[in-house]
Formats: sequence, structure tokens, C-alpha cells
Amino acid sequence: MRRWWRIWASALLAAMAMHAPVQAEDGYDLWLRYQPLPEAQRVAVAPYAHSVVAEERGSDGTIAIAAGEIERGLAGLVGPSDEAAPGSGHVVLIGTAAAPSIAALDLPLTTLGEDGFVIRSVARGGKHMIVVAANRPVGVLYGAFALLRRLQTGADVTAFDLRETPRVALRLLNHWDNLDRTVERGYAGQSIWDWWKLPDYADPRYTDYARANASIGINGAVLNNVNARPDSLTGPWIAKAAKVADVLRPYGIKVYLSARWSAPVELNETATADPLDPAVATWWKAKANEIYRAIPDFGGFLVKANSEGQPGPQDYKRSHADGANMLAAAVAPHGGIVMWRAFVYSQVDPEDRAKQAYSEFKPLDGAFADNVVLQVKNGPIDFQPREPFHPLFGAMPKTPLMIEFQITKEYLGFATHLAYLAPMWEEALGADTYAKGKGSTVAKVVDGSLERHRLTGMAGVANIGSDRNWSGSTFDQANWYAFGRLAWDHALSSEAIAREWAAQTFAPDPAVVDPVVAMMLESRQAVVDYMTPLGLAHLMATGHHYGPGPWVSDLARPEWNPVYYHRADREGIGFDRTASGSNAVAQYAPPVARRFADRSRVGDDYLLWFHHVGWDERMASGRSLWAELVHRYDRGVASVADMQARWAALEPRIDDARFEQVTRFLAIQRQEATWWRDASIAYFADVSKRPLPEGVRPPAHDLDHYKAISHPFAPGHH
Amino acid sequence: MRRWWRIWASALLAAMAMHAPVQAEDGYDLWLRYQPLPEAQRVAVAPYAHSVVAEERGSDGTIAIAAGEIERGLAGLVGPSDEAAPGSGHVVLIGTAAAPSIAALDLPLTTLGEDGFVIRSVARGGKHMIVVAANRPVGVLYGAFALLRRLQTGADVTAFDLRETPRVALRLLNHWDNLDRTVERGYAGQSIWDWWKLPDYADPRYTDYARANASIGINGAVLNNVNARPDSLTGPWIAKAAKVADVLRPYGIKVYLSARWSAPVELNETATADPLDPAVATWWKAKANEIYRAIPDFGGFLVKANSEGQPGPQDYKRSHADGANMLAAAVAPHGGIVMWRAFVYSQVDPEDRAKQAYSEFKPLDGAFADNVVLQVKNGPIDFQPREPFHPLFGAMPKTPLMIEFQITKEYLGFATHLAYLAPMWEEALGADTYAKGKGSTVAKVVDGSLERHRLTGMAGVANIGSDRNWSGSTFDQANWYAFGRLAWDHALSSEAIAREWAAQTFAPDPAVVDPVVAMMLESRQAVVDYMTPLGLAHLMATGHHYGPGPWVSDLARPEWNPVYYHRADREGIGFDRTASGSNAVAQYAPPVARRFADRSRVGDDYLLWFHHVGWDERMASGRSLWAELVHRYDRGVASVADMQARWAALEPRIDDARFEQVTRFLAIQRQEATWWRDASIAYFADVSKRPLPEGVRPPAHDLDHYKAISHPFAPGHH
Repeated sequence: MRRWWRIWASALLAAMAMHAPVQAEDGYDLWLRYQPLPEAQRVAVAPYAHSVVAEERGSDGTIAIAAGEIERGLAGLVGPSDEAAPGSGHVVLIGTAAAPSIAALDLPLTTLGEDGFVIRSVARGGKHMIVVAANRPVGVLYGAFALLRRLQTGADVTAFDLRETPRVALRLLNHWDNLDRTVERGYAGQSIWDWWKLPDYADPRYTDYARANASIGINGAVLNNVNARPDSLTGPWIAKAAKVADVLRPYGIKVYLSARWSAPVELNETATADPLDPAVATWWKAKANEIYRAIPDFGGFLVKANSEGQPGPQDYKRSHADGANMLAAAVAPHGGIVMWRAFVYSQVDPEDRAKQAYSEFKPLDGAFADNVVLQVKNGPIDFQPREPFHPLFGAMPKTPLMIEFQITKEYLGFATHLAYLAPMWEEALGADTYAKGKGSTVAKVVDGSLERHRLTGMAGVANIGSDRNWSGSTFDQANWYAFGRLAWDHALSSEAIAREWAAQTFAPDPAVVDPVVAMMLESRQAVVDYMTPLGLAHLMATGHHYGPGPWVSDLARPEWNPVYYHRADREGIGFDRTASGSNAVAQYAPPVARRFADRSRVGDDYLLWFHHVGWDERMASGRSLWAELVHRYDRGVASVADMQARWAALEPRIDDARFEQVTRFLAIQRQEATWWRDASIAYFADVSKRPLPEGVRPPAHDLDHYKAISHPFAPGHH
Repeated sequence: MRRWWRIWASALLAAMAMHAPVQAEDGYDLWLRYQPLPEAQRVAVAPYAHSVVAEERGSDGTIAIAAGEIERGLAGLVGPSDEAAPGSGHVVLIGTAAAPSIAALDLPLTTLGEDGFVIRSVARGGKHMIVVAANRPVGVLYGAFALLRRLQTGADVTAFDLRETPRVALRLLNHWDNLDRTVERGYAGQSIWDWWKLPDYADPRYTDYARANASIGINGAVLNNVNARPDSLTGPWIAKAAKVADVLRPYGIKVYLSARWSAPVELNETATADPLDPAVATWWKAKANEIYRAIPDFGGFLVKANSEGQPGPQDYKRSHADGANMLAAAVAPHGGIVMWRAFVYSQVDPEDRAKQAYSEFKPLDGAFADNVVLQVKNGPIDFQPREPFHPLFGAMPKTPLMIEFQITKEYLGFATHLAYLAPMWEEALGADTYAKGKGSTVAKVVDGSLERHRLTGMAGVANIGSDRNWSGSTFDQANWYAFGRLAWDHALSSEAIAREWAAQTFAPDPAVVDPVVAMMLESRQAVVDYMTPLGLAHLMATGHHYGPGPWVSDLARPEWNPVYYHRADREGIGFDRTASGSNAVAQYAPPVARRFADRSRVGDDYLLWFHHVGWDERMASGRSLWAELVHRYDRGVASVADMQARWAALEPRIDDARFEQVTRFLAIQRQEATWWRDASIAYFADVSKRPLPEGVRPPAHDLDHYKAISHPFAPGHH
């Protein structure tokens, strides 16, 4: 009889599926899809599905969210099923020590800090419990998501013994979102912040945003572009930010704002923005007080000053420290911080751009207030497909340094090129600065362990927009996910993160996960190869940075031109940053400097970043540099073809909508990788006067053809 | 036993509902929600749900879509149910006469034209059929949607005897969408056209767009802004348009493009854009050929020329007819048309702006080629909350005139104010031009019946964008819907359309439909009252047109300033357009002109449009004009409060997400209606030097407060 019911129920469900409005997988659910588990695991999880116990549910909004998430998650993982009926006696128990049932378990919560959690399987009198506990409700929320993630990656419900604490305190998204709802370097539609309707209407999507971020441990969001407008600090805009903060708060996410240095002057409220003028300090104190009245847990300010035309303290002959400390004093009474960006280069200084941030900030080590953290990009130029690590890491021991990654793919093909960025970030974090001897990795600088800093963090420039799938493409969701996971634990490998993401986003089936992960892991090197191989950088077209522009040489400032970076001529190519050149290598600790300066030890990845190399010099491969360069371009295109083949084979295992979109985007990537390859080879052949190596396919068009291509309506260029 | 199954099934379904990812009503489904019908009707419809017969399904894409839509619709209307099992013998039979089963029924298809359809209930041997038949597949598709609409508004399945043909041939949306994906006067996010990814990737949303339009009979879309860029006519952009055309084609929707007059010059392909220069004509012919190669059923061009800074034939001292006819010759061999906009006013002419289009175009009657249609806005200024009908209607008997409505609410509060526009359009269409005596309504001009024109149409400036709910608000979906329905049949009343829409969008329950319709029907007059009562117009703030700006007087051209339109001074207010003033009344047929010119017959709605009236003159109400004006502002605010109360009472009957959004938006509208009222009263009190009538609440702030309000980041202002 029971069997018969099941058949009948299946038929009914099939009919319903047919009847339901056709709801394609549009990507909105991200990695939180909670699809039914494989059968054996499904049966093991089912008894817990209706028994989530959370004593603080009624008293704490965050615990209520955590409990609801587990219920929603388990319901999805178990699917509709009669085993799921209540009364099994198995429970999921969640809470902080304020909950008597948690307190009674005597768990080792003391070492978990503010955000950590434990997950334990506990058997009592024949019944099983899964316990998620933490010191603060937000830790419970993180634990709830961790539990669901583990279940989707094969965890045994009876064997949880897990303890996690995040490695850095500030795990932040930086939204480069403008007040008119455009997004600088945004390739996923408009800003998700519908400023115009705020504060009167908060789009329900803000809640979904908060949930997705909490699921990966992100705990802060800078709402507006670092190229900030003064308006964002006026009353109406503070009210809008406050409304967003109200939505994000229960998810453990604080709101921060980018501050425009000259705001008080532009708002006609001070005569100067000199940080040492008392009227200026008073203005910022009053402004901070105003913000904290609206947003009691406001996180603080992010500042881009004296960089790319933005105003700053140097306009008044004051230092970055003078500026940062004045702002820091304004927010300090409220527990706020200032994140001061080290991304500066002068509009007049002829010094190698790669050296300027170090030159500017290194002397200021020790000069910053306690609640200031410097925010340093992973590399010394600007989010290129590959850069060596930034020389400031390890060079400012007395100053906390956050790392800034760019999740949005400004220089890596926007939303249509598949490029999984975690390997790039892993590479940066794993780089050894030798600041305190071998093993002084960038990660240890960033997590504070090298110099025992308390203020630690990672910032990611968000790739989130109003597009239904949030990030413009399915695979770009993985970059958001990976950023959050690495900010939580930089010791996770990019492969492990890819596996988690693929299992949750598509299916835990290894026949899906394995090829998807393989695509992801080869994807970033593919972009490096077809855009900027062998340590080349910044060869993208002007302004929007889409497509090749290695020939561009007519922009006003030398360092705006690709030719500044590649320095190709008839003899060779590459930027000599050794002692015979700009000597940028000297900004690194001696063991690193020696390696980078040594043509035989620097390695292919950074070769042309640090060296000007003759076209005919032999590479480790035995090829001439010219032949190697062409080989790399070809290899990049071939990698995309490989990704296409892997993806095509997945057709039976992926839903139609996402399969189709990824297929189309890979086709675009293939076509544009070929464009990059052909245009670059045409240009460098012209400069080097070298013939194409034997057997190499000539570019499809002549160089003038590629030079004539323009994209006046490219997105993200505001 | 059967009863027991049902109980069990209900429990299962309830559990699934709980388990399913929480899918809020986000508005994406528009009026195509297909929710289960009330029980009696549900039972009657169920036997048809699994038996849609469409012999042409395999051979015609449009028929396949129609059949699929009926299946999807009936499945939703019937809901999951065991009565829905196949084998009832009842069928829905659809097709054209090419299907033998349709041909056998000998239906009166000959008079249906290209787009009409019949729906008949037919009983044969104890079995019932619902037959949907037409001459062309698109007629069958229209019939399919009509069938589903009728079922949702209470039709008896056994009594269909319906025949419909559209009143106008061209039922077009005009998208003011720019190539960078901004939308001029768009308040629903970005353009739905993701130009950057076209033609390589067609967002599945384009299909949903086509389906929604087909459901209300829309058969054409002008993809790009009338303020056009020359780029849209280049090869890459033609390819993008062609891809969109491929998606829209099976839904019976043709693609049109806005053409920039100076395109060939700006593209450096001709030396001039003089329409009489043979090189120019040759260029356009070649361009048309190029477009038709990519889009064989391309509809034609829409042109805004010599208007608001756009280039045009007058730059070469040629007439609008010279320009239109040259373009018309280019598309004529392909069956294309040219829609030439009559929205022109000179940047130098001091003539009353309301008169200029008539002055310009009336003398050209008879001068246009056969495949040119003039596109005339409903009123002589620019989509104000209320305008008298445009004097060109009825004044150009030899020329086909389309009417242009603005669905997007540029002047009526963007997306957050609830304003159902069908009453405004109904008012315009029902206006009597007296061109050929009484009964010569604008509708008869537009549908060609007055002068037997073949080329007939209505254009609506779309309110569609990338927002999840398409139109920025739930109630703005009704304006899209109403435009389509009126374009199909202008004899439908705005109330009937509102009832249809409310039943499909919310629920057929009269307890929902009645109050929703009541809100809708009072909403537009509310906006008129709190923004521009008694025939006032164009008092909105500069540029973005949001909020009050009646005091603005400093813009370069007189007709850009609100003071030009209201002409208020210490003595009175209003624009004298009688013989003692601009004599714009003389552009109307004598009976109309006499009524408009007669202070006692013109009526309150157009009073200050045509007359300058003393503040102390008595109105029909017995109040002075000044008191009446204040009364109207108060009445507008009160109407919004009334809508709020009606909506609040609907809380138990509306899903949470939409209830909440509408509630919030009504709160914004209430607040802003009050702002309009207070600012306007403060200003006119200042100008008139009149004290507030007794008992009237003074404005909350002084006039300077209102003058200081600005909105630098208002949407839609590109």
C-alpha cells in the first residue's frame, strides 16, 4: 500500500511540475538552491528536517533567521517525502550559550571569538542531535549555513565535529555603485540599491543579498563608489543608507560609506578640506555623529584620496596619515574605522607607477591612528589578470593592511568571459613577502598574524547588480562565493572552494563537479594567456578596458598608455624594473627582490613585468621569446576551446537555461580570445618586425582592422 | 477511499508549499498568472485541460506557442486535480483553415482579416469543443490569449461565440531605450535589451516580453530611442536588432528602428543629409536593403526630426514631407513604413508651443507618400496629466495619423505614483474633432474609419525595463496592459479593462476587483488635481519632471519654463488661447473652437489651458478661482488617502510582497501629493497675494523650502 501511494504521489508531482508556471533556473538562487540530496544521504538527513530547536528564536532576529534557513535548507535537501514527518526525535539544536539547552552541553565556545561556531553531532538516549552553537547569534547563522553547505558536500549527519573561526575580522564588499544607480565597472546591470525609492521602499532583494552574503561570512558592505559624491553624506542619503543597514543588520552585515574628501567644501559647509583645520575636523565629527544617530552600528568610511583625480589631504600639503587620522578621530568614539586606500599614483610624477604607492605610504608606517586600516590592492598596478603581490605587504609592520581584490572582472572580460578568480587570489595570499623571513606570506600580513594586528580584513569589489542572476553570469557567482570563503578562511584552496560551489550551484554529482571544477581551475590562466601572457599587463583598450589595445600610445599621461607597460620595440619587450631600470624590485624584501631581478629565477609568469627581454632570447621551453609569446596566445585560445568541450559534454546534466547561457558566453569568450590573440600578435609582429613562427595561424585581419574596433557603449564605464 | 486520497494529497501539497523555496509574488508573471479558478468554473474547465488539439503545431511555430499557452494556462486555471486527467473527450481545437479539422467547421473566417479570430463552443456527439480559429497563426495566438482571459473573467466554456478583429493595424510600443542601456524617461531599471551581449546571447526575457505583448495584441516594437544615435543603423547594431526580431517574430511582433536623420553624415558616409540629394536617398536605400537582408519583415523607421535639437530635413530647408518621403521610398520596396513624429516645436519661434505642430504639418496634408504615417501625441504639448486633444486630429484628412500615448509616467509621478492612464487615453480617443460633423472622434481618425485610411495605428511609449516586475510597480503593469487592449479595441472602456486586469493580476474575486478598480479609476484625476488642476500644465521641475516647479522662470527658452504655461500674476492665472490671446482654439474645428473659447462652456478640465482667469472670478462651484484651485489640490491629496484606505482593507486578499510594495508606494505618493499641494499653494499664494481660503491647512514650509528641493540623481533623465 505504502509503495502504491508513492507511485501515486510521484505521478501527482510530475503533473504538478508540468502544471507549474515554467520557472527556468534563472540563477537567482545562487549557491543556495537546496536541491534534494542523493538518496542515501537524503534518508539520513530527513529525520532532522522538521525538528529545528532554537530557544532564542522568539527573542533574537538573527537566531530566527538561522533557524528558518536550516528549515528551508533541510526541506529542500530532503525534498517532499513521508520520511520527513515530525516525531523522529532527532533534532537540530541551535543557539548561543544564552539558550539553556546549549549552555547545558558545555561546548568549548570561549575560543570561538565573535564570529566562530561549532557544529557537533551528539547522541543522547538513542536520539541524535546536530548542535550549532556560537557566542553571538551571527556565529549561529554562519554555523547554520556551514551545516547546510557540509550536508551538500557529503557530510555524515552523525559525525559532525567542526569548529570554525574566521581568519580576518572585516570581510567586506566594496560596491562601486553610483547615486544614479550606474555601477562603475559593473557588468551585472544597475546597482542593486534602488536609491530613488529608498528610504521609503526597501526592495525585498536587499534581504536576499544579505542572506547570500551571510551564507559565506561577509560582514560588511561599502554601499557607494570610492569615486564618491558629496551627496552621499547628506541627510537624505544617510537615511537611505540607514534603511539598507536596517535590512542587513540581522544578517550580521554592517554598512560603510565611501567618503569624498572634499565633501564639506562641496556642500558649502566649510571653506577648506584641510585635515588640520579645526573647522574641518569639527565638520566630520558632526557628520559622524549624524550618521551614527541613523546607523548606530555604522562601520566607518572608505576613502580614495589623491588618486586618479580624487581630492585628498595632499591638496593641502598634508599627508595621507593626516587625512586618515582626522577622519578616524571622528568615528573613533562610535567604534568606527577608516579604510584608507593605498591605490594612489600621481598625475605628475614620472616614477614607475608600480612604485608610487609604496613610495607614498611606506614612510607613513606607524603614523596612522589605531582605527585606521590601509586598503591595498593585491598587486601594484590595478587588478590585472596577473600581477606580483603589492610591495606594501610586509613593508608596513606597524600598520594594519587589508587586501583589496576585484571580484568584478574589469580587466578579465566582463561578465561573458569565464574566469574563476580564486586561483589568482590564492596566488596573491600565498606569496611570500619574506618580511620576517621565509613564510611571511601576504596572508599572514592580511590576517594580522605576522605583526599581531587586531584590525584585519579583506575587501572585494563587488560584481553584484540588478541582473536576475546577480553577477551577470552563472560562473561569476563563483567569484562572489570564493571571495567570501577566502575572506573567512584564506587557507581554503581555490579547488576546494570550486568544488563546494559547483556542488551547491549545479549538483553534487562528481560527473558534474569534476568537469566544472576543471573548467574553473584552468580559466584564469586562459585569460592571462590570451590577454597578457608572460607578465605583460594593462594592454586593454582605453577607458572601458574591454578588448585589446596594446598599440595605444596617445593618452595624456604616460602611464595611461599600454605602450608604457609593455615597452615593446624592435629589439624586445617588457618593463625593466631591475636596478638597470625603475628598480621597483628594490621595494620587495631582499630575497624576493633578488628572485624578481634574476632573469633565470623570476619565472615566466612575471618575466616581462620585471624584465625587458629580447625577442630572440631563448626561454626555458626552448622557444624564442617571440615564439613563446605567440604560443601563449594560442594556448589561451585553446583553453577556451577546452572549456567549451567540457561544458558541451555536461548538457544532459545541467538545466536548459543555465546550460544555454554558459554555452553562449563561452562562444563569446572563444571569439574574443581569438580577437585578443590575433590583434596582439598582429601588433607585436608589427613592432618586432618578426615573421610569425612556423605553423602559426596568421591573424584573421590586418592590424588596422583591430585598431579600428571601438565599443562606445561598453558597460561599466561611468 | 477517493476522499481519503484527496486529504492525503492536500497534506502533501501543503508540505510542498512549505518546502518550496519561498517564491514571493514578484510581479514577473504580470497578468498571465493563471491561478486556479473559483471551484464551479474550475470543474467546468478541467475536462479540457489535457486535450488541446492543434494540427499545425508541428509545422508552425506560432501555432505551437498558442497551443502551449492554452495548455499552460488551463493547467494553472484548473490547478493540480484528478479531474484534469485526459480522456474526457472534451477538446480545445485551434488553428487556421489550413488545418483540416478547422476547415471542416466552416467558420466565418473571411471577415476576420489578418489578425482577427473566432472562439466558438461546439457540441458534437456529447463532447464539447472550444474552437479558436483565425486566418493566420498570429490570429490563433491572439485567440488563445483571449480564451484564457475570458475564462479568468467568468466565461462559460459551453457558450463561446466570440469574434474579434483589431481596430488598428499598427499596435506598437516605442522604447526610448538608449544604446548604453539607459532608458529615457524609464523608471523600471535599465533597458530590457542587453545590447552588449547581443547578438551572441538573447536573454530569455525577450521571449517573455514577446509573450506578454502578444497576449494583449501588440504587434510591433520600436527598439531604440527616438532621440537616436547613428550607431543603431550600423552593421553590428542591425545584427543585434535582427536577433531580437528572431525572438519576437513567432509572437507576431515586428521590429522597427528609430532613425537619426543625420546618420549618414555622422557615419561619414555622405556629405549631407539633404533629403533631395540623390546620394542621401541612395544611402538610405542601401541601408534599408541591408536591414531587410537581416530582418526580412522589418517594420520600418520611426523618426523624430527637427524637434528638441534633433536634426531633420529643415536643416536643409526641406519640409518634413520631403524627409519622410525620401525614407519611405527606401523602405517601400520591402513593404516597410515610416512613422514621422509630429512632435515638433521650434527653438526660435515665439508662437504658442501648443500651436506649432499644427502650423507645421497641416499645410503638408496630402504631401506624404502612401507608406508614411504621422505619429501625433494625444495632446498638443507633451504628455501632461491632462491636455485637450491634439488639433491635428481631424485636420489632415489625406494623411494617416497614428496616436502616440506615453505609457511611462514621465509627468505623472514615475513608478511610485499610482495613476491608471486608460481614462486619460479614453478621454483623448473619445474627444470629438467635429472634422466631419458630430461624432468625428479622435478614435475614428486614428482607426482610419473617418477617412478610410488603411495605415492605422497607436504607439505607446513603453514603461518596460529590467526591473523584475517589468514596469517598476504592480499598477504600472496595468498601463502596459491597457495600452495594448485599447490599441486592439478602443471601444473598450477603461473600467472594463481595469476589471480584466485586476481579475487576472490579483484574483477574480469581486472583493478584490471592485476596490482595485475603484482605486484605478480615481487615480489619474487624483494626479491631475494634486499636480496640475483646472487645465494647468507643465509645472514640473526642470529636466527630470519630478515634483513641483511652478516658479521656474530662468530657462533659456520661454516654453521650457513653467511660468510660460501658467502665466500667473497678481490678477489671475491661465494661458489665453482664445482670439484675445494665442488663438490656438482656432486650430480646432469651429464647434470645438467655440466651446473651448467660451469661458462658460469650456469646463473646469481645460479652463486654464485656454483662458486667463482672474483669481477672484466665481466658478461653477460657487468658489472663487483661487479657492477652487486650492480645493482641487486638497481633493488630489484626499484621493490618495482614499486609495490608501481601499488598499489597506485588501491586506487579507493580496500576497505579502505585492501588498507591501503597493502600500509603500502609496505612502510615497501621499507624501509627494502633499508636497505638490503645499509647494503649489505656497507659490500661487505668493504670486496672487491672496490669503489662504478659510479653513485651509497652510503649506508645511515656506516657498523657499520648496524651491530649494532638488533631485540630481532622478531616474530616466538621460
